[in-house]
Amino acid sequence: MPVVKLTLSYDGTDYHGWQKQPRLPTIQGRMETALYQLTRQRLAVHGAGRTDAGVHALGQVAHFLSDRSFQPKDWIRGINALLPEDIVIRAAEVAKDRFHARHSAKNKQYRYLIRNAELPSPFDRRTKWFLRQTLDVDGMSQAAEGFRGAHVFTSFCAAGAETDDHHVDLKRVDLIQREDEIAVILEAPRFLQYMVRNIVGFLVEVGKGKRGPGEVSDILAAKDRRRAGPTAPSHGLCLMKVDY
Amino acid sequence: MPVVKLTLSYDGTDYHGWQKQPRLPTIQGRMETALYQLTRQRLAVHGAGRTDAGVHALGQVAHFLSDRSFQPKDWIRGINALLPEDIVIRAAEVAKDRFHARHSAKNKQYRYLIRNAELPSPFDRRTKWFLRQTLDVDGMSQAAEGFRGAHVFTSFCAAGAETDDHHVDLKRVDLIQREDEIAVILEAPRFLQYMVRNIVGFLVEVGKGKRGPGEVSDILAAKDRRRAGPTAPSHGLCLMKVDY
Repeated sequence: MPVVKLTLSYDGTDYHGWQKQPRLPTIQGRMETALYQLTRQRLAVHGAGRTDAGVHALGQVAHFLSDRSFQPKDWIRGINALLPEDIVIRAAEVAKDRFHARHSAKNKQYRYLIRNAELPSPFDRRTKWFLRQTLDVDGMSQAAEGFRGAHVFTSFCAAGAETDDHHVDLKRVDLIQREDEIAVILEAPRFLQYMVRNIVGFLVEVGKGKRGPGEVSDILAAKDRRRAGPTAPSHGLCLMKVDY
Repeated sequence: MPVVKLTLSYDGTDYHGWQKQPRLPTIQGRMETALYQLTRQRLAVHGAGRTDAGVHALGQVAHFLSDRSFQPKDWIRGINALLPEDIVIRAAEVAKDRFHARHSAKNKQYRYLIRNAELPSPFDRRTKWFLRQTLDVDGMSQAAEGFRGAHVFTSFCAAGAETDDHHVDLKRVDLIQREDEIAVILEAPRFLQYMVRNIVGFLVEVGKGKRGPGEVSDILAAKDRRRAGPTAPSHGLCLMKVDY
């Protein structure tokens, strides 16, 4: 059966994350409802990344199997017409037979946004972590360097995470400061649960002067979640793109 | 009694406009509640512009009278601590005795944002009017020129508006296109009810090719609201600043 690949954006504020849960609004649940309304078939939608509650996406990728011979533009129009306005299908295509949104992914990019200013703004409160204390961005950039490359990220992985394999090759961790905004961009073939938010939580501790940039290698070596510090809140995080 | 001048931002999505109304959430009502909680005094808050339901502000100005000898930074912190996160006080100062947020205003700037793209975005749905049809921005800019200067704006004023004086000296009407966004910037010492949204509604008709840029002078001369066309939706509009 043909595999349909979708690229979608969503404002995750009002959802309990990607993954379907009984009686709770989720992106996957909302997608499957829209597809049922459109096709009258119960289609399972698989996402590339299971974003947590409150996390956003600019370029999440998902796939499903369907024998309906819709053109890509008709999938886009048809599904969008049935979705609420905080979820938007941006692209659709018929993919190769063995395509799987998660298993075929080669690289993912996440972005974490911080508003570092004297005052919050009503316009970015859904998408940025507001921090009043001026952060030491040079120190944070130095700490970010310590994360780059292949490491065992046990100290930065949620304690109850599904997998025991915590090896991740973190290809990119960059800080970009522009006016009141600090963006942290991360790329890797895979990410562990809460990994981005735990790394950002630690970087902010460095930015506040509570931790030193040089501590990263010791914390990684400890393989102990308790060593790394707080988890950044979900609403600053966005899944930017998935490469195949 | 000292006059306190405030500059504030708000996301107007969840409010029935600036002006207080019984049993409805409004910006003025929310401000007066916060001031009462802070001072235990019933203070009347006067705004520079009575923004309509759904309209936003980056730089609304308001004033109130109070004998409390708070420092400006304490007004900011104290009021912000009592406001919901979609309203933020950005600045406070003790103004001259005869200062009045509305009567003393010399110039106001409004901005109207349009998203002109194939697809909507979940991230600007609260602040931009989404229009799929590619707009003729050159035609719109040409029409905008026809509005500049001193005119009687009866054709672009809400039919039931409070005032009979429809003379407005429109100092600026500029279109700025950047990627998927068209911004319309307007400046004048005063604006009539729905005036910006009626002008933008007409400009979009020109952008769609339904009306010609040359029609502006005839429509102004007609002094008839029915001649000008539709009103743009409120959520694209933002009060940017007020000069004194």
